[in-house]
Amino acid sequence: MIEGHGDDAYKYKAITINFSSNVYNRVDHSGLHRYLFRQMESIRTYPEPEPCSLEKELAEQLRLLPRQVCVTNGATEAIYLIAQTFRNRTSAVLMPTFSEYADACCLHGHKVISLYSLCHLPEEAGLVWLCNPNNPTGEVRNKEELLACINANLQRIFVIDQSYEFFTQRPLLGAAEAAALPNVILLHSMTKRFAVPGLRIGYATGCERLLREIRLQRMPWSVNQLAIEAGHYLLRSSSDYNVDISLLLNEKERLAQALLSIGGMEVWPSDTHYMLIRLRMGKASALKEYLATEHGILIRDASNFEGLDEHFFRIATQTPEENDKLIKCIAKWIYML
Amino acid sequence: MIEGHGDDAYKYKAITINFSSNVYNRVDHSGLHRYLFRQMESIRTYPEPEPCSLEKELAEQLRLLPRQVCVTNGATEAIYLIAQTFRNRTSAVLMPTFSEYADACCLHGHKVISLYSLCHLPEEAGLVWLCNPNNPTGEVRNKEELLACINANLQRIFVIDQSYEFFTQRPLLGAAEAAALPNVILLHSMTKRFAVPGLRIGYATGCERLLREIRLQRMPWSVNQLAIEAGHYLLRSSSDYNVDISLLLNEKERLAQALLSIGGMEVWPSDTHYMLIRLRMGKASALKEYLATEHGILIRDASNFEGLDEHFFRIATQTPEENDKLIKCIAKWIYML
Repeated sequence: MIEGHGDDAYKYKAITINFSSNVYNRVDHSGLHRYLFRQMESIRTYPEPEPCSLEKELAEQLRLLPRQVCVTNGATEAIYLIAQTFRNRTSAVLMPTFSEYADACCLHGHKVISLYSLCHLPEEAGLVWLCNPNNPTGEVRNKEELLACINANLQRIFVIDQSYEFFTQRPLLGAAEAAALPNVILLHSMTKRFAVPGLRIGYATGCERLLREIRLQRMPWSVNQLAIEAGHYLLRSSSDYNVDISLLLNEKERLAQALLSIGGMEVWPSDTHYMLIRLRMGKASALKEYLATEHGILIRDASNFEGLDEHFFRIATQTPEENDKLIKCIAKWIYML
Repeated sequence: MIEGHGDDAYKYKAITINFSSNVYNRVDHSGLHRYLFRQMESIRTYPEPEPCSLEKELAEQLRLLPRQVCVTNGATEAIYLIAQTFRNRTSAVLMPTFSEYADACCLHGHKVISLYSLCHLPEEAGLVWLCNPNNPTGEVRNKEELLACINANLQRIFVIDQSYEFFTQRPLLGAAEAAALPNVILLHSMTKRFAVPGLRIGYATGCERLLREIRLQRMPWSVNQLAIEAGHYLLRSSSDYNVDISLLLNEKERLAQALLSIGGMEVWPSDTHYMLIRLRMGKASALKEYLATEHGILIRDASNFEGLDEHFFRIATQTPEENDKLIKCIAKWIYML
């Protein structure tokens, strides 16, 4: 899907508060900016054909072998490479979720089956795709149940997108734990962890055998030099990017309760900082237009997630003041209905 | 091919002169550096899913419709997207040339046929790939003959990589001229024109029908935000990047003649600033090691181009002083043989 993702602020004139992106970006990037400015001469030469230096650094931090890490042009490139590696197979995708899994699979000739539970996996499914914490619901699967499912289905490959792993307190699969399994590929996002969606840095981890197959599909120089440089800086400076997740999740809960108390909507329980909301009346697209044009606020119309309908939207928690403004504006719109 | 390209300076400790890359980078990037520093806040948000703003700007400059331009993560992404779009076809590749055409085609299930002339195209070839000016030979095809061949083969798609178009004085296909043909895709490189290989910005142009098929294959956000910003800056500032091509080609000729006068090698005639050289005795890999470790000079061992052998290397013209140093060092090595 090219159109229809969140963070489409570029389409509007005066967005001042952006609830539409799941990227938590209340971080100070000034150190990164200065570092990149000092590295600018590096744009004169080609990047490493494969970003091995960054893979080595990540492997050390994650207690993996470099061969168990594949750095990509955003986690999106990893999704497309995996679909390409296993082209023409059958993929089951746990819905509702990020649309790129199904899109990438369709592009590479997969038969795509929509799943709504992991209890009964279709016999023919060679790959199972899920997002954990899930986008757009914010739900985290019970880790023991997920592991039991993986171990009971060793003939299938589980692609688990953990892009939001730094934004939950629920237990998730560790990179080393997953790499010890023969049938799991984890996706990770530096975009989300460090709030750098513009740079495009993600990575896949997993056992050597699966990762080797994925690497064979990649083109040279797919990660640009400034992204590689930023990756090194961010990994070295990760302590500057620690988010107080308790505080953020408490504020998420306050925002959810305040929206519930307005009435006229259901708020889905979320294990992370963003949440899915269903309007009882009115369309998400109309609310989005109202908030964008009247108040400079951007939300994510979630009606285009498979399995959802025109009443759904998604928001990510911002500062208390900004959340208060959103609550007030949504209440105003609801009362006007 | 992941390993084995030029510009592999990252493998050596102390390269001070780099003849191995075809990118002419005697340009002052300080304006670009300052501009990118001012745009750094843009890394906080996602790039446009497709880099439409840059496609629009390029289209205006090239007198094309935006739908006739597809901006990619380096011309390399365009190569891989084209191979993917026409997966499982038969591709004829004019050799010796840049290895990525055949590699991308193999990855996407093409049958690849090596060609050494455009006179007799194999019946089954659905695509014909050529690089013009060619890498590594520097040869430019006669434009009238090339057009005649294209027009005589309307059932085949010609993918013509014009990455080095700004570094020759021989006539080439114009973007508008090619877009009026039903069976031509041109590849262009901002990397080469503006000396920014680290940023990864290239583009394909052609008729709307072919370009639409290619766009359908691309993933969102493949071009990073700083690359998009740089693209806008460079197109607006292109007059700052004008290279005196006459001067550069004269210096190339002087370098070629000086190498010929050493003896022990053949210099292939080139229509651009780089050239292919064949040692009569000794291996290119040995010369490369000698120059890198003893003199901090990097050349491109060209033995891995299909159709060439262990005696071939490629160099790109640098400053007169640097070229003089190369001539002296190669002469020394030849006399030691």
